[in-house]
Amino acid sequence: MDILPPESLKNEIIIPNKILMGPGPSNCSPRVLHAVGHQVVGHMHPEVFQAMDEIKEGLRYVFQTKNDLTLAVSASGHGGMEAVFSNLVEPGEKVLVAVSGIWGSRAADMARRYGAVAKEISTEVGNDFSLAQLENAIQNESPKLLFIVQGDSSTGVYQSLEGVGDICHRYNCLLAVDTVASLGGVAFFADRWKVDVVYSGSQKVIGCPPGLAPISFSPKAQKVIQERKTPVPVFYWDMKILGQQWNCFGGSVRPYHHTVSSNLIFGLREGLAIIAEEGLENVIRRHKECAQRLYEGLNRLGLQPLVAEVYKRLPTVTTVVVPENVNWRTVVGFAMKNYSLEINGGLGPTEGKVLRIGLMGYNATRQKVDLVLRVLQEALEHPGTRVTSKL
Amino acid sequence: MDILPPESLKNEIIIPNKILMGPGPSNCSPRVLHAVGHQVVGHMHPEVFQAMDEIKEGLRYVFQTKNDLTLAVSASGHGGMEAVFSNLVEPGEKVLVAVSGIWGSRAADMARRYGAVAKEISTEVGNDFSLAQLENAIQNESPKLLFIVQGDSSTGVYQSLEGVGDICHRYNCLLAVDTVASLGGVAFFADRWKVDVVYSGSQKVIGCPPGLAPISFSPKAQKVIQERKTPVPVFYWDMKILGQQWNCFGGSVRPYHHTVSSNLIFGLREGLAIIAEEGLENVIRRHKECAQRLYEGLNRLGLQPLVAEVYKRLPTVTTVVVPENVNWRTVVGFAMKNYSLEINGGLGPTEGKVLRIGLMGYNATRQKVDLVLRVLQEALEHPGTRVTSKL
Repeated sequence: MDILPPESLKNEIIIPNKILMGPGPSNCSPRVLHAVGHQVVGHMHPEVFQAMDEIKEGLRYVFQTKNDLTLAVSASGHGGMEAVFSNLVEPGEKVLVAVSGIWGSRAADMARRYGAVAKEISTEVGNDFSLAQLENAIQNESPKLLFIVQGDSSTGVYQSLEGVGDICHRYNCLLAVDTVASLGGVAFFADRWKVDVVYSGSQKVIGCPPGLAPISFSPKAQKVIQERKTPVPVFYWDMKILGQQWNCFGGSVRPYHHTVSSNLIFGLREGLAIIAEEGLENVIRRHKECAQRLYEGLNRLGLQPLVAEVYKRLPTVTTVVVPENVNWRTVVGFAMKNYSLEINGGLGPTEGKVLRIGLMGYNATRQKVDLVLRVLQEALEHPGTRVTSKL
Repeated sequence: MDILPPESLKNEIIIPNKILMGPGPSNCSPRVLHAVGHQVVGHMHPEVFQAMDEIKEGLRYVFQTKNDLTLAVSASGHGGMEAVFSNLVEPGEKVLVAVSGIWGSRAADMARRYGAVAKEISTEVGNDFSLAQLENAIQNESPKLLFIVQGDSSTGVYQSLEGVGDICHRYNCLLAVDTVASLGGVAFFADRWKVDVVYSGSQKVIGCPPGLAPISFSPKAQKVIQERKTPVPVFYWDMKILGQQWNCFGGSVRPYHHTVSSNLIFGLREGLAIIAEEGLENVIRRHKECAQRLYEGLNRLGLQPLVAEVYKRLPTVTTVVVPENVNWRTVVGFAMKNYSLEINGGLGPTEGKVLRIGLMGYNATRQKVDLVLRVLQEALEHPGTRVTSKL
């Protein structure tokens, strides 16, 4: 052998146990982890196909849709974003991206790579889009597709989607929604709100490891894919074939598209089963109550959420303004060092300006809210946290 | 809620334990599964970065390379194939695909979707390519890149790669090799053989769940990526950014590209550690000895490998000709029904013609060889297996 076995692999692995209360991933329940750690099963075995069928039903429940083309892409949440643009847009077509944080910027980048003309509208950091703003931009640009984020984890803003689908369809525009950080934590109605494609991630409220991106296409979006003039440019995201593997089109054969990870599939099945057992409305209420409890605690500590109006706040990810004389890195470091508790600083437009606190799925409990508040208080009272000049 | 929780998710999940001796995935060791089922850790946490660093070293060992740009793509093995074409080829450029089974066909399809001109050369089913054939085709077509499969799991053919790199480079052609079904089961020397990009899957000899695609680019390939005239068309596969997240370029920052799945990462780290502990040459020898033992047993049963010459046989996946009067479906069904043992029928050009028996990683043991032989014997002696007319 030319290359010798690396020394670093001779050490025993140490995987830490942490409480993940940043913007995601969140912790998984023991039930989900038990399924994930089970022996591998073949990707074409009946038990895996059954789990995939049950996942489809579970996703139709959490997305509140009857869409046939509902499945999970074998990739991180970004795979959902890729699937939107690679399937629904052809080179030269125009898309409109509503940028309220880093996810919109990333979507615009992605769309351009696929040869789309991506127009961006943006809102000030910490605010959402009004229907008038959206309608105005759609009217001006006549895009094929509007991309918008329901819950932007970089800013903590919740974007209301009521009425957006109606506007889009009035101008013959498809509506694409990113719910990676929001799904299950706030209400979402794909059919009622006339959403043409929605995707999410497995690792937030659904409470699974990262690695799968749930996605659902409306019949109208499905027709757009079927009628493309050019092939879907990426085999791995091609819904025409992937939809067959997931048996979305009612055929009798399930051709091999790629090797799904049975471990992640069984985990997602369990994550969705847990939500179905608790009931989606109860899950959403739990997230709302936890967020409310967090807001009250932050208020007692003299901390201010970045998003002023409560109804514009994303319950799953709260952005907290870093006080003038506080070093955010020290707070984050204190929580991790003393409590193995993850909270995060800002990202993109909020970098250096906020702390981000996640309350998602398995971690959306009163106990976890109280824990994070206690740790915040201790961190703020700790002499090392105060700075004379803000970083 | 418009959509009610699905009934199917109310049933308790049953995940079977099977012995996976088809062309993959293979079974994982308890040690790997323990790591996979551990609580999630954040994708930017130091423990995950450390595991990623150790994976890079482990992959350099199994690929036998010093390539900086060595990492695992967060997708099935197909993600490796996508990464090859999306990073190394620009629209209008020509690639040559050596088709010895379905993987070559798929690669050609993929390349065309990226706008490449894909020329194919093929060999009869069950045979490999000679150096003369490859040189001739490269000379005629002057492609930017040759794509070839070291071990085609659909035909069971092992393709020797010695000398292929020299030929490619003589004609200024990049050499891309698929080792999904072969890596760790046969020798592979990325640097010695002058391979420009090689990828594999996590779920075969490496012994992890599916979901990660190890990949490594030579300095020359890395330069090709850096000097592209057009952006990499798919953000998710973009090695310029992904390579930063994996810290391949020696920078001090590791920017966020996507959310890696810590569960799969820790699993891959353990799979590679197990190979490093056993020693790659021992792992390869074990696969060779198991294959040899299988060939002898097949011979005793009067069964004939599809690939006539032993040195052209892939030790990890053996294709066995279905005898005239045997129904292959019954054999496969018998093994699964009575022993929870997976062996498979053919795929693509071998469909209906062969049985495929996998001996990979954790399952490449004498005991497993003897088991599969015993089950084959029982199945062949079983009255239901014989047919008057072959299916």
